[in-house]
Amino acid sequence: MAFRARILGAAAGGGLPQWNCGCTNCTLARQGKIPAQSQSSLAVTGNGIDWAVLNASPDIRTQLIGTPALHPTGQRELPLASVLVTNGDIDHVAGLLTLREMQPFTLFATDGIHDVLTRNPIFDALNADVVTRQTIALDTPFPLAPDLTATLFPVPGKVPLYLEGDTVQTDLMGEQTVGVELRAGGTNAFYIPGCALLPSQLAARLDGADIVFFDGTLWRDDEMQTTGVGTKTGKRMGHMSISGTDGAVEAFKTLKIKRKIFVHMNNTNPVLRPDSAERQLAEASGWTIGQDGMEVRP
Amino acid sequence: MAFRARILGAAAGGGLPQWNCGCTNCTLARQGKIPAQSQSSLAVTGNGIDWAVLNASPDIRTQLIGTPALHPTGQRELPLASVLVTNGDIDHVAGLLTLREMQPFTLFATDGIHDVLTRNPIFDALNADVVTRQTIALDTPFPLAPDLTATLFPVPGKVPLYLEGDTVQTDLMGEQTVGVELRAGGTNAFYIPGCALLPSQLAARLDGADIVFFDGTLWRDDEMQTTGVGTKTGKRMGHMSISGTDGAVEAFKTLKIKRKIFVHMNNTNPVLRPDSAERQLAEASGWTIGQDGMEVRP
Repeated sequence: MAFRARILGAAAGGGLPQWNCGCTNCTLARQGKIPAQSQSSLAVTGNGIDWAVLNASPDIRTQLIGTPALHPTGQRELPLASVLVTNGDIDHVAGLLTLREMQPFTLFATDGIHDVLTRNPIFDALNADVVTRQTIALDTPFPLAPDLTATLFPVPGKVPLYLEGDTVQTDLMGEQTVGVELRAGGTNAFYIPGCALLPSQLAARLDGADIVFFDGTLWRDDEMQTTGVGTKTGKRMGHMSISGTDGAVEAFKTLKIKRKIFVHMNNTNPVLRPDSAERQLAEASGWTIGQDGMEVRP
Repeated sequence: MAFRARILGAAAGGGLPQWNCGCTNCTLARQGKIPAQSQSSLAVTGNGIDWAVLNASPDIRTQLIGTPALHPTGQRELPLASVLVTNGDIDHVAGLLTLREMQPFTLFATDGIHDVLTRNPIFDALNADVVTRQTIALDTPFPLAPDLTATLFPVPGKVPLYLEGDTVQTDLMGEQTVGVELRAGGTNAFYIPGCALLPSQLAARLDGADIVFFDGTLWRDDEMQTTGVGTKTGKRMGHMSISGTDGAVEAFKTLKIKRKIFVHMNNTNPVLRPDSAERQLAEASGWTIGQDGMEVRP
Protein backbone atom coordinates (compact mmCIF):
# COMPACT_ATOMS: atom_id res chain seq x y z
CA MET A 1 0.00 0.00 0.00
CA ALA A 2 2.06 2.89 -1.19
CA PHE A 3 1.76 5.70 -3.68
CA ARG A 4 3.43 5.16 -7.00
CA ALA A 5 3.29 7.19 -10.22
CA ARG A 6 4.44 6.58 -13.76
CA ILE A 7 4.81 9.33 -16.32
CA LEU A 8 2.98 8.10 -19.42
CA GLY A 9 3.79 11.26 -21.38
CA ALA A 10 6.16 14.05 -20.37
CA ALA A 11 5.62 16.43 -23.30
CA ALA A 12 2.98 19.11 -23.84
CA GLY A 13 0.46 19.02 -26.70
CA GLY A 14 2.18 18.08 -29.95
CA GLY A 15 4.72 15.82 -28.28
CA LEU A 16 8.39 15.47 -29.17
CA PRO A 17 8.72 15.30 -32.11
CA GLN A 18 5.59 17.18 -33.13
CA TRP A 19 4.31 15.91 -36.51
CA ASN A 20 4.83 19.20 -38.39
CA CYS A 21 7.71 20.76 -36.46
CA GLY A 22 11.25 21.14 -37.73
CA CYS A 23 12.68 22.90 -34.64
CA THR A 24 16.03 21.78 -33.21
CA ASN A 25 14.52 19.50 -30.56
CA CYS A 26 12.00 17.86 -32.91
CA THR A 27 14.70 17.22 -35.51
CA LEU A 28 17.04 15.71 -32.89
CA ALA A 29 14.22 13.52 -31.58
CA ARG A 30 13.32 12.38 -35.11
CA GLN A 31 16.99 11.44 -35.61
CA GLY A 32 17.01 9.51 -32.31
CA LYS A 33 19.64 11.84 -30.83
CA ILE A 34 17.48 12.90 -27.86
CA PRO A 35 14.68 10.84 -26.28
CA ALA A 36 11.24 11.29 -27.85
CA GLN A 37 8.46 12.19 -25.41
CA SER A 38 4.74 11.61 -25.81
CA GLN A 39 1.91 13.88 -24.73
CA SER A 40 0.93 14.81 -21.20
CA SER A 41 -0.36 12.00 -18.99
CA LEU A 42 0.38 10.46 -15.58
CA ALA A 43 -0.67 7.07 -14.19
CA VAL A 44 -1.02 6.77 -10.41
CA THR A 45 -1.82 3.98 -7.96
CA GLY A 46 -2.30 3.77 -4.21
CA ASN A 47 -1.94 0.00 -3.92
CA GLY A 48 0.23 -1.06 -6.86
CA ILE A 49 -2.71 -2.85 -8.48
CA ASP A 50 -5.50 -0.42 -9.39
CA TRP A 51 -4.53 2.58 -11.49
CA ALA A 52 -5.95 5.96 -12.39
CA VAL A 53 -4.84 7.84 -15.48
CA LEU A 54 -4.59 11.61 -15.11
CA ASN A 55 -5.36 13.15 -18.53
CA ALA A 56 -6.05 11.07 -21.63
CA SER A 57 -3.51 12.16 -24.23
CA PRO A 58 -3.83 11.47 -27.98
CA ASP A 59 -0.90 9.06 -27.49
CA ILE A 60 -2.68 6.92 -24.89
CA ARG A 61 -2.75 3.76 -27.02
CA THR A 62 1.03 3.70 -27.39
CA GLN A 63 1.50 4.85 -23.79
CA LEU A 64 -0.57 1.93 -22.45
CA ILE A 65 1.24 -0.57 -24.70
CA GLY A 66 4.47 0.65 -23.07
CA THR A 67 3.13 0.27 -19.51
CA PRO A 68 3.01 -3.39 -18.38
CA ALA A 69 1.17 -2.48 -15.14
CA LEU A 70 -1.77 -1.37 -17.29
CA HIS A 71 -1.88 -4.32 -19.68
CA PRO A 72 -5.05 -6.43 -19.86
CA THR A 73 -5.19 -9.27 -17.34
CA GLY A 74 -7.84 -11.20 -19.33
CA GLN A 75 -9.79 -10.99 -22.60
CA ARG A 76 -11.11 -7.55 -21.63
CA GLU A 77 -10.06 -7.06 -17.99
CA LEU A 78 -7.82 -4.11 -17.18
CA PRO A 79 -6.47 -2.68 -13.90
CA LEU A 80 -7.76 0.79 -14.87
CA ALA A 81 -10.13 2.19 -12.24
CA SER A 82 -10.57 5.71 -13.52
CA VAL A 83 -9.51 8.55 -15.78
CA LEU A 84 -9.33 12.12 -14.51
CA VAL A 85 -9.15 15.13 -16.82
CA THR A 86 -7.63 18.39 -15.51
CA ASN A 87 -8.74 20.66 -18.36
CA GLY A 88 -10.44 20.49 -21.75
CA ASP A 89 -7.27 20.87 -23.82
CA ILE A 90 -6.98 18.47 -26.73
CA ASP A 91 -3.76 16.97 -25.40
CA HIS A 92 -5.70 16.00 -22.27
CA VAL A 93 -9.04 14.80 -23.68
CA ALA A 94 -8.50 13.46 -27.22
CA GLY A 95 -7.30 10.13 -25.79
CA LEU A 96 -10.79 9.55 -24.39
CA LEU A 97 -11.79 8.67 -27.96
CA THR A 98 -9.30 5.81 -27.83
CA LEU A 99 -10.79 4.54 -24.54
CA ARG A 100 -14.07 3.75 -26.30
CA GLU A 101 -13.95 -0.05 -26.39
CA MET A 102 -16.76 -0.95 -23.93
CA GLN A 103 -14.23 -0.93 -21.08
CA PRO A 104 -15.70 0.06 -17.70
CA PHE A 105 -14.05 2.94 -15.84
CA THR A 106 -15.08 6.14 -14.09
CA LEU A 107 -14.40 9.45 -15.84
CA PHE A 108 -13.79 12.21 -13.30
CA ALA A 109 -13.80 15.93 -14.09
CA THR A 110 -15.28 19.19 -12.90
CA ASP A 111 -18.70 20.20 -14.13
CA GLY A 112 -17.07 22.77 -16.43
CA ILE A 113 -14.83 20.18 -18.09
CA HIS A 114 -17.62 17.59 -18.40
CA ASP A 115 -19.65 20.29 -20.12
CA VAL A 116 -16.98 20.69 -22.81
CA LEU A 117 -17.16 16.94 -23.49
CA THR A 118 -20.96 16.87 -23.51
CA ARG A 119 -21.07 19.56 -26.18
CA ASN A 120 -19.14 17.20 -28.48
CA PRO A 121 -21.32 14.17 -29.37
CA ILE A 122 -18.23 12.29 -30.59
CA PHE A 123 -17.43 11.59 -26.91
CA ASP A 124 -20.67 9.59 -26.74
CA ALA A 125 -18.35 6.88 -28.04
CA LEU A 126 -17.69 6.39 -24.32
CA ASN A 127 -20.79 4.26 -23.80
CA ALA A 128 -22.68 5.47 -20.72
CA ASP A 129 -23.53 1.85 -19.87
CA VAL A 130 -19.91 1.17 -18.92
CA VAL A 131 -18.19 4.56 -18.51
CA THR A 132 -19.59 6.55 -15.59
CA ARG A 133 -19.03 10.30 -15.84
CA GLN A 134 -18.73 11.64 -12.33
CA THR A 135 -18.66 15.36 -11.55
CA ILE A 136 -16.21 16.44 -8.87
CA ALA A 137 -16.62 19.62 -6.85
CA LEU A 138 -13.51 21.68 -6.15
CA ASP A 139 -11.76 21.21 -2.80
CA THR A 140 -13.71 18.06 -1.98
CA PRO A 141 -11.76 14.79 -1.50
CA PHE A 142 -13.04 11.74 -3.43
CA PRO A 143 -11.87 8.15 -4.01
CA LEU A 144 -9.95 8.22 -7.33
CA ALA A 145 -9.05 4.52 -7.12
CA PRO A 146 -8.86 1.94 -4.32
CA ASP A 147 -6.52 3.26 -1.59
CA LEU A 148 -6.07 6.55 -3.43
CA THR A 149 -7.86 9.80 -2.59
CA ALA A 150 -7.83 12.89 -4.79
CA THR A 151 -8.86 16.51 -4.36
CA LEU A 152 -9.27 18.94 -7.24
CA PHE A 153 -8.44 22.60 -6.74
CA PRO A 154 -8.43 25.61 -9.10
CA VAL A 155 -5.17 26.84 -10.59
CA PRO A 156 -4.72 29.94 -12.74
CA GLY A 157 -5.35 29.08 -16.38
CA LYS A 158 -7.57 29.69 -19.41
CA VAL A 159 -10.22 27.92 -21.45
CA PRO A 160 -9.02 25.51 -24.22
CA LEU A 161 -7.68 27.16 -27.36
CA TYR A 162 -10.58 25.88 -29.48
CA LEU A 163 -13.08 27.61 -27.15
CA GLU A 164 -11.28 30.95 -26.93
CA GLY A 165 -13.33 34.03 -27.80
CA ASP A 166 -12.06 37.42 -28.90
CA THR A 167 -10.64 38.19 -25.46
CA VAL A 168 -8.94 35.60 -23.32
CA GLN A 169 -8.29 35.71 -19.59
CA THR A 170 -5.17 33.64 -18.99
CA ASP A 171 -5.18 33.56 -15.18
CA LEU A 172 -8.79 32.54 -14.62
CA MET A 173 -9.31 30.65 -11.33
CA GLY A 174 -12.22 28.26 -11.67
CA GLU A 175 -13.25 24.87 -13.00
CA GLN A 176 -11.59 25.08 -16.41
CA THR A 177 -8.06 24.25 -15.21
CA VAL A 178 -7.48 22.28 -12.03
CA GLY A 179 -4.65 20.77 -10.05
CA VAL A 180 -4.90 17.41 -8.31
CA GLU A 181 -3.85 16.54 -4.78
CA LEU A 182 -3.28 12.82 -4.30
CA ARG A 183 -3.13 10.99 -0.94
CA ALA A 184 -2.22 7.34 -0.47
CA GLY A 185 -0.88 5.87 2.75
CA GLY A 186 1.26 8.60 4.27
CA THR A 187 2.15 10.22 0.94
CA ASN A 188 0.77 13.43 -0.50
CA ALA A 189 1.52 14.33 -4.09
CA PHE A 190 0.36 17.05 -6.46
CA TYR A 191 -0.18 17.00 -10.23
CA ILE A 192 -0.40 20.42 -11.94
CA PRO A 193 0.45 20.11 -15.66
CA GLY A 194 -0.83 23.60 -16.50
CA CYS A 195 -0.47 26.71 -14.32
CA ALA A 196 -0.28 30.37 -15.36
CA LEU A 197 1.25 31.67 -12.11
CA LEU A 198 1.74 30.64 -8.49
CA PRO A 199 -0.32 32.78 -6.12
CA SER A 200 0.63 32.58 -2.43
CA GLN A 201 -2.43 30.50 -1.58
CA LEU A 202 -1.41 27.84 -4.09
CA ALA A 203 2.20 27.95 -2.90
CA ALA A 204 1.01 27.38 0.67
CA ARG A 205 -1.01 24.38 -0.47
CA LEU A 206 2.04 22.74 -2.06
CA ASP A 207 4.46 23.54 0.77
CA GLY A 208 5.52 20.38 2.62
CA ALA A 209 4.41 17.95 -0.11
CA ASP A 210 6.24 14.71 -0.82
CA ILE A 211 5.99 15.01 -4.61
CA VAL A 212 4.93 17.77 -7.01
CA PHE A 213 4.55 17.24 -10.77
CA PHE A 214 4.44 20.76 -12.19
CA ASP A 215 3.94 22.68 -15.44
CA GLY A 216 7.31 22.77 -17.25
CA THR A 217 5.90 23.84 -20.62
CA LEU A 218 8.46 26.52 -21.49
CA TRP A 219 11.92 27.50 -20.32
CA ARG A 220 11.40 31.14 -21.33
CA ASP A 221 8.20 33.08 -21.86
CA ASP A 222 9.22 34.10 -25.43
CA GLU A 223 10.52 30.66 -26.41
CA MET A 224 7.98 30.02 -29.20
CA GLN A 225 9.06 33.29 -30.82
CA THR A 226 12.82 32.85 -30.41
CA THR A 227 12.71 29.30 -31.79
CA GLY A 228 10.65 30.57 -34.73
CA VAL A 229 7.72 28.16 -34.37
CA GLY A 230 5.03 30.52 -33.10
CA THR A 231 4.02 33.98 -32.00
CA LYS A 232 2.48 33.36 -28.58
CA THR A 233 4.14 33.89 -25.22
CA GLY A 234 3.90 31.32 -22.45
CA LYS A 235 1.70 33.69 -20.44
CA ARG A 236 -0.70 33.96 -23.40
CA MET A 237 -0.94 30.16 -23.45
CA GLY A 238 -1.64 30.04 -19.70
CA HIS A 239 1.75 28.66 -18.65
CA MET A 240 4.37 30.15 -16.33
CA SER A 241 7.93 29.49 -17.51
CA ILE A 242 10.58 27.47 -15.71
CA SER A 243 13.20 30.25 -15.65
CA GLY A 244 13.06 33.97 -14.87
CA THR A 245 12.13 36.04 -11.86
CA ASP A 246 8.46 35.08 -12.24
CA GLY A 247 9.27 31.49 -13.22
CA ALA A 248 8.64 28.20 -11.43
CA VAL A 249 12.18 27.59 -10.16
CA GLU A 250 12.13 30.98 -8.41
CA ALA A 251 8.54 30.57 -7.14
CA PHE A 252 9.28 27.17 -5.56
CA LYS A 253 12.62 28.19 -4.03
CA THR A 254 11.35 28.67 -0.47
CA LEU A 255 8.88 25.76 -0.50
CA LYS A 256 9.78 22.51 1.24
CA ILE A 257 8.96 19.76 -1.26
CA LYS A 258 10.78 16.43 -1.32
CA ARG A 259 10.54 15.73 -5.06
CA LYS A 260 9.83 18.37 -7.71
CA ILE A 261 9.31 17.09 -11.25
CA PHE A 262 8.60 19.09 -14.38
CA VAL A 263 6.07 17.61 -16.81
CA HIS A 264 4.16 18.93 -19.87
CA MET A 265 7.31 20.25 -21.61
CA ASN A 266 6.74 21.90 -24.97
CA ASN A 267 8.92 20.49 -27.76
CA THR A 268 10.84 23.79 -27.94
CA ASN A 269 11.98 23.52 -24.30
CA PRO A 270 15.79 23.15 -24.05
CA VAL A 271 15.47 20.98 -20.90
CA LEU A 272 14.35 18.19 -23.25
CA ARG A 273 17.97 17.95 -24.43
CA PRO A 274 19.79 15.89 -21.76
CA ASP A 275 23.08 17.78 -22.30
CA SER A 276 21.65 21.31 -22.31
CA ALA A 277 22.79 24.03 -19.90
CA GLU A 278 19.14 24.71 -19.07
CA ARG A 279 18.59 21.09 -18.01
CA GLN A 280 21.61 21.34 -15.72
CA LEU A 281 20.34 24.60 -14.24
CA ALA A 282 16.92 23.10 -13.52
CA GLU A 283 18.46 20.00 -11.94
CA ALA A 284 20.86 22.11 -9.87
CA SER A 285 17.76 23.87 -8.48
CA GLY A 286 16.45 20.54 -7.20
CA TRP A 287 14.09 19.75 -10.08
CA THR A 288 13.82 16.55 -12.09
CA ILE A 289 12.88 16.72 -15.79
CA GLY A 290 10.10 14.19 -16.33
CA GLN A 291 10.53 11.53 -19.01
CA ASP A 292 8.21 9.02 -20.63
CA GLY A 293 8.14 5.85 -18.55
CA MET A 294 9.71 7.43 -15.45
CA GLU A 295 8.55 5.74 -12.23
CA VAL A 296 8.17 7.97 -9.18
CA ARG A 297 7.84 6.73 -5.62
CA PRO A 298 8.06 8.77 -2.44
CA MET B 1 5.30 11.24 -62.03
CA ALA B 2 3.91 7.99 -60.79
CA PHE B 3 1.40 6.79 -58.27
CA ARG B 4 2.80 5.57 -54.99
CA ALA B 5 1.08 4.64 -51.73
CA ARG B 6 2.28 3.89 -48.24
CA ILE B 7 0.15 2.14 -45.65
CA LEU B 8 0.37 4.29 -42.52
CA GLY B 9 -1.89 1.98 -40.52
CA ALA B 10 -3.13 -1.46 -41.58
CA ALA B 11 -5.38 -2.23 -38.60
CA ALA B 12 -9.00 -1.31 -37.93
CA GLY B 13 -10.11 0.88 -35.02
CA GLY B 14 -8.35 -0.16 -31.82
CA GLY B 15 -5.17 -1.22 -33.60
CA LEU B 16 -2.99 -4.23 -32.82
CA PRO B 17 -2.61 -4.48 -29.89
CA GLN B 18 -5.77 -2.73 -28.75
CA TRP B 19 -5.24 -1.03 -25.36
CA ASN B 20 -7.76 -3.17 -23.46
CA CYS B 21 -7.71 -6.43 -25.43
CA GLY B 22 -6.22 -9.68 -24.26
CA CYS B 23 -7.10 -11.77 -27.34
CA THR B 24 -4.51 -14.09 -28.88
CA ASN B 25 -3.37 -11.59 -31.52
CA CYS B 26 -3.16 -8.62 -29.13
CA THR B 27 -1.16 -10.67 -26.63
CA LEU B 28 1.24 -11.89 -29.32
CA ALA B 29 1.69 -8.33 -30.60
CA ARG B 30 2.31 -7.03 -27.07
CA GLN B 31 4.97 -9.73 -26.69
CA GLY B 32 6.56 -8.73 -30.00
CA LYS B 33 5.83 -12.15 -31.52
CA ILE B 34 3.76 -10.79 -34.40
CA PRO B 35 4.08 -7.31 -35.96
CA ALA B 36 2.01 -4.58 -34.28
CA GLN B 37 -0.25 -2.58 -36.62
CA SER B 38 -1.60 0.92 -36.12
CA GLN B 39 -5.00 2.23 -37.09
CA SER B 40 -6.40 2.67 -40.58
CA SER B 41 -4.69 5.24 -42.80
CA LEU B 42 -3.08 5.42 -46.25
CA ALA B 43 -0.72 8.06 -47.67
CA VAL B 44 -0.74 8.57 -51.44
CA THR B 45 1.20 10.70 -53.90
CA GLY B 46 1.05 11.28 -57.65
CA ASN B 47 4.48 12.86 -58.02
CA GLY B 48 6.56 11.48 -55.16
CA ILE B 49 6.67 14.90 -53.48
CA ASP B 50 3.21 16.08 -52.46
CA TRP B 51 1.15 13.70 -50.34
CA ALA B 52 -2.45 13.21 -49.34
CA VAL B 53 -3.44 11.25 -46.25
CA LEU B 54 -6.58 9.14 -46.56
CA ASN B 55 -8.20 8.97 -43.11
CA ALA B 56 -6.66 10.57 -40.02
CA SER B 57 -6.26 7.80 -37.47
CA PRO B 58 -5.72 8.37 -33.74
CA ASP B 59 -2.17 7.05 -34.34
CA ILE B 60 -1.29 9.71 -36.92
CA ARG B 61 1.47 11.32 -34.84
CA THR B 62 3.42 8.08 -34.59
CA GLN B 63 2.57 7.15 -38.17
CA LEU B 64 4.01 10.42 -39.50
CA ILE B 65 7.14 10.08 -37.34
CA GLY B 66 7.68 6.71 -39.04
CA THR B 67 7.23 8.12 -42.57
CA PRO B 68 10.30 10.08 -43.76
CA ALA B 69 8.51 11.26 -46.94
CA LEU B 70 6.12 13.20 -44.69
CA HIS B 71 8.67 14.75 -42.33
CA PRO B 72 8.91 18.55 -42.11
CA THR B 73 11.23 20.12 -44.66
CA GLY B 74 11.60 23.36 -42.64
CA GLN B 75 10.55 24.87 -39.33
CA ARG B 76 6.89 24.33 -40.20
CA GLU B 77 6.90 23.22 -43.86
CA LEU B 78 5.45 19.82 -44.67
CA PRO B 79 4.79 17.98 -47.97
CA LEU B 80 1.18 17.33 -46.91
CA ALA B 81 -1.29 18.71 -49.43
CA SER B 82 -4.53 17.30 -48.07
CA VAL B 83 -6.39 14.92 -45.82
CA LEU B 84 -9.42 13.00 -47.04
CA VAL B 85 -11.86 11.29 -44.70
CA THR B 86 -13.94 8.36 -45.98
CA ASN B 87 -16.39 8.12 -43.07
CA GLY B 88 -16.99 9.63 -39.63
CA ASP B 89 -15.68 6.66 -37.65
CA ILE B 90 -13.39 7.57 -34.78
CA ASP B 91 -10.51 5.57 -36.23
CA HIS B 92 -10.73 7.77 -39.33
CA VAL B 93 -11.34 11.25 -37.84
CA ALA B 94 -9.82 11.41 -34.33
CA GLY B 95 -6.37 12.06 -35.83
CA LEU B 96 -7.66 15.40 -37.16
CA LEU B 97 -7.30 16.66 -33.58
CA THR B 98 -3.58 15.95 -33.82
CA LEU B 99 -3.33 17.92 -37.08
CA ARG B 100 -4.24 21.14 -35.24
CA GLU B 101 -0.89 22.95 -35.24
CA MET B 102 -1.60 25.87 -37.62
CA GLN B 103 -0.43 23.71 -40.54
CA PRO B 104 -2.12 24.52 -43.88
CA PHE B 105 -3.83 21.67 -45.72
CA THR B 106 -7.16 20.97 -47.39
CA LEU B 107 -9.62 18.69 -45.61
CA PHE B 108 -11.77 16.82 -48.13
CA ALA B 109 -14.96 14.95 -47.27
CA THR B 110 -18.55 14.59 -48.38
CA ASP B 111 -21.11 17.02 -47.02
CA GLY B 112 -22.45 14.29 -44.73
CA ILE B 113 -19.07 13.63 -43.17
CA HIS B 114 -18.20 17.34 -42.83
CA ASP B 115 -21.51 17.70 -41.01
CA VAL B 116 -20.43 15.14 -38.39
CA LEU B 117 -17.27 17.18 -37.76
CA THR B 118 -19.13 20.50 -37.64
CA ARG B 119 -21.42 19.21 -34.92
CA ASN B 120 -18.35 18.69 -32.72
CA PRO B 121 -16.80 22.08 -31.81
CA ILE B 122 -13.59 20.35 -30.72
CA PHE B 123 -12.68 20.06 -34.42
CA ASP B 124 -12.59 23.88 -34.55
CA ALA B 125 -9.03 23.21 -33.34
CA LEU B 126 -8.39 22.96 -37.09
CA ASN B 127 -8.13 26.71 -37.56
CA ALA B 128 -10.21 27.78 -40.57
CA ASP B 129 -7.54 30.35 -41.46
CA VAL B 130 -5.16 27.58 -42.52
CA VAL B 131 -7.23 24.40 -42.91
CA THR B 132 -9.73 24.64 -45.76
CA ARG B 133 -12.68 22.27 -45.46
CA GLN B 134 -13.78 21.37 -48.96
CA THR B 135 -16.97 19.48 -49.69
CA ILE B 136 -16.76 16.84 -52.39
CA ALA B 137 -19.76 15.63 -54.35
CA LEU B 138 -20.01 11.92 -55.11
CA ASP B 139 -18.81 10.68 -58.51
CA THR B 140 -17.09 13.98 -59.33
CA PRO B 141 -13.30 13.95 -59.92
CA PHE B 142 -11.26 16.56 -58.01
CA PRO B 143 -7.55 17.33 -57.51
CA LEU B 144 -6.57 15.60 -54.25
CA ALA B 145 -2.92 16.67 -54.54
CA PRO B 146 -0.69 17.87 -57.40
CA ASP B 147 -0.71 15.21 -60.16
CA LEU B 148 -3.28 13.14 -58.29
CA THR B 149 -7.00 13.07 -59.03
CA ALA B 150 -9.60 11.45 -56.78
CA THR B 151 -13.25 10.53 -57.12
CA LEU B 152 -15.49 9.60 -54.19
CA PHE B 153 -18.26 7.07 -54.65
CA PRO B 154 -20.77 5.51 -52.25
CA VAL B 155 -20.15 2.05 -50.84
CA PRO B 156 -22.55 0.04 -48.65
CA GLY B 157 -22.02 0.99 -45.01
CA LYS B 158 -23.56 2.56 -41.93
CA VAL B 159 -23.33 5.71 -39.82
CA PRO B 160 -20.57 5.83 -37.16
CA LEU B 161 -21.23 3.79 -34.01
CA TYR B 162 -21.51 6.91 -31.84
CA LEU B 163 -24.32 8.23 -34.07
CA GLU B 164 -26.31 4.99 -34.28
CA GLY B 165 -29.98 5.20 -33.30
CA ASP B 166 -32.28 2.39 -32.20
CA THR B 167 -32.31 0.84 -35.65
CA VAL B 168 -29.28 0.70 -37.89
CA GLN B 169 -29.13 0.13 -41.63
CA THR B 170 -25.78 -1.52 -42.35
CA ASP B 171 -25.85 -1.39 -46.15
CA LEU B 172 -26.78 2.24 -46.62
CA MET B 173 -25.51 3.69 -49.93
CA GLY B 174 -24.87 7.41 -49.52
CA GLU B 175 -22.44 9.98 -48.22
CA GLN B 176 -21.69 8.40 -44.85
CA THR B 177 -19.23 5.78 -46.17
CA VAL B 178 -17.34 6.33 -49.40
CA GLY B 179 -14.67 4.67 -51.47
CA VAL B 180 -11.93 6.59 -53.27
CA GLU B 181 -10.75 6.16 -56.83
CA LEU B 182 -7.26 7.56 -57.41
CA ARG B 183 -5.71 8.41 -60.77
CA ALA B 184 -2.11 9.46 -61.35
CA GLY B 185 -0.27 9.11 -64.64
CA GLY B 186 -1.56 5.89 -66.16
CA THR B 187 -2.43 4.26 -62.84
CA ASN B 188 -5.84 3.82 -61.29
CA ALA B 189 -6.15 2.66 -57.71
CA PHE B 190 -9.02 2.26 -55.26
CA TYR B 191 -9.16 2.68 -51.49
CA ILE B 192 -12.16 1.14 -49.73
CA PRO B 193 -11.38 0.50 -46.04
CA GLY B 194 -15.02 -0.16 -45.10
CA CYS B 195 -17.58 -2.01 -47.23
CA ALA B 196 -20.60 -4.02 -46.14
CA LEU B 197 -21.04 -5.95 -49.41
CA LEU B 198 -20.00 -5.82 -53.06
CA PRO B 199 -22.96 -5.06 -55.35
CA SER B 200 -22.40 -5.75 -59.05
CA GLN B 201 -22.18 -2.04 -59.85
CA LEU B 202 -19.29 -1.62 -57.42
CA ALA B 203 -17.61 -4.78 -58.71
CA ALA B 204 -17.80 -3.40 -62.25
CA ARG B 205 -16.19 -0.16 -61.11
CA LEU B 206 -13.21 -2.01 -59.62
CA ASP B 207 -12.75 -4.45 -62.52
CA GLY B 208 -9.55 -3.73 -64.44
CA ALA B 209 -7.94 -1.59 -61.72
CA ASP B 210 -4.20 -1.57 -61.10
CA ILE B 211 -4.48 -1.57 -57.30
CA VAL B 212 -7.34 -2.06 -54.84
CA PHE B 213 -6.98 -1.53 -51.08
CA PHE B 214 -10.03 -3.23 -49.60
CA ASP B 215 -11.84 -3.81 -46.30
CA GLY B 216 -10.18 -6.79 -44.57
CA THR B 217 -11.73 -6.17 -41.15
CA LEU B 218 -12.74 -9.75 -40.32
CA TRP B 219 -11.86 -13.19 -41.57
CA ARG B 220 -15.24 -14.61 -40.49
CA ASP B 221 -18.51 -12.82 -39.84
CA ASP B 222 -18.78 -14.27 -36.30
CA GLU B 223 -15.13 -13.68 -35.39
CA MET B 224 -15.78 -11.20 -32.56
CA GLN B 225 -18.02 -13.80 -30.91
CA THR B 226 -15.77 -16.83 -31.42
CA THR B 227 -12.71 -14.98 -30.10
CA GLY B 228 -14.76 -13.86 -27.10
CA VAL B 229 -14.17 -10.13 -27.41
CA GLY B 230 -17.58 -8.95 -28.58
CA THR B 231 -21.11 -9.81 -29.60
CA LYS B 232 -21.45 -8.12 -32.98
CA THR B 233 -21.17 -9.76 -36.36
CA GLY B 234 -19.13 -8.21 -39.15
CA LYS B 235 -22.33 -7.49 -41.07
CA ARG B 236 -23.71 -5.59 -38.06
CA MET B 237 -20.54 -3.46 -38.06
CA GLY B 238 -20.89 -2.75 -41.79
CA HIS B 239 -18.03 -4.97 -42.94
CA MET B 240 -18.06 -7.96 -45.30
CA SER B 241 -15.66 -10.71 -44.24
CA ILE B 242 -12.63 -11.97 -46.15
CA SER B 243 -13.72 -15.63 -46.23
CA GLY B 244 -16.99 -17.39 -46.94
CA THR B 245 -19.34 -17.58 -49.88
CA ASP B 246 -20.37 -13.94 -49.42
CA GLY B 247 -16.84 -12.81 -48.54
CA ALA B 248 -14.36 -10.58 -50.36
CA VAL B 249 -12.09 -13.34 -51.74
CA GLU B 250 -15.08 -14.95 -53.43
CA ALA B 251 -16.57 -11.63 -54.60
CA PHE B 252 -13.32 -10.54 -56.26
CA LYS B 253 -12.55 -13.91 -57.87
CA THR B 254 -13.71 -13.01 -61.37
CA LEU B 255 -12.42 -9.42 -61.34
CA LYS B 256 -9.21 -8.53 -63.16
CA ILE B 257 -7.18 -6.46 -60.66
CA LYS B 258 -3.38 -6.38 -60.70
CA ARG B 259 -2.80 -5.87 -56.97
CA LYS B 260 -5.37 -6.62 -54.26
CA ILE B 261 -4.44 -5.57 -50.73
CA PHE B 262 -6.44 -6.01 -47.56
CA VAL B 263 -6.37 -3.13 -45.07
CA HIS B 264 -8.38 -2.19 -41.93
CA MET B 265 -7.88 -5.59 -40.26
CA ASN B 266 -9.50 -5.98 -36.86
CA ASN B 267 -7.12 -7.22 -34.16
CA THR B 268 -9.00 -10.53 -33.99
CA ASN B 269 -8.30 -11.32 -37.66
CA PRO B 270 -6.06 -14.41 -38.01
CA VAL B 271 -4.44 -13.00 -41.18
CA LEU B 272 -2.51 -10.66 -38.85
CA ARG B 273 -0.47 -13.72 -37.79
CA PRO B 274 2.15 -14.20 -40.54
CA ASP B 275 2.18 -17.99 -40.07
CA SER B 276 -1.58 -18.54 -39.96
CA ALA B 277 -3.41 -20.85 -42.36
CA GLU B 278 -5.86 -18.03 -43.07
CA ARG B 279 -3.04 -15.72 -44.19
CA GLN B 280 -1.79 -18.41 -46.55
CA LEU B 281 -5.30 -18.94 -47.94
CA ALA B 282 -5.73 -15.21 -48.59
CA GLU B 283 -2.33 -14.97 -50.25
CA ALA B 284 -3.00 -18.06 -52.35
CA SER B 285 -6.12 -16.26 -53.63
CA GLY B 286 -3.93 -13.43 -54.94
CA TRP B 287 -4.36 -11.03 -51.99
CA THR B 288 -1.67 -9.21 -50.02
CA ILE B 289 -2.20 -8.56 -46.30
CA GLY B 290 -1.40 -4.88 -45.71
CA GLN B 291 1.20 -3.96 -43.08
CA ASP B 292 2.23 -0.70 -41.44
CA GLY B 293 4.89 0.99 -43.57
CA MET B 294 4.23 -1.11 -46.69
CA GLU B 295 5.01 0.79 -49.91
CA VAL B 296 2.81 0.03 -52.90
CA ARG B 297 3.61 0.99 -56.49
CA PRO B 298 1.87 -0.19 -59.63
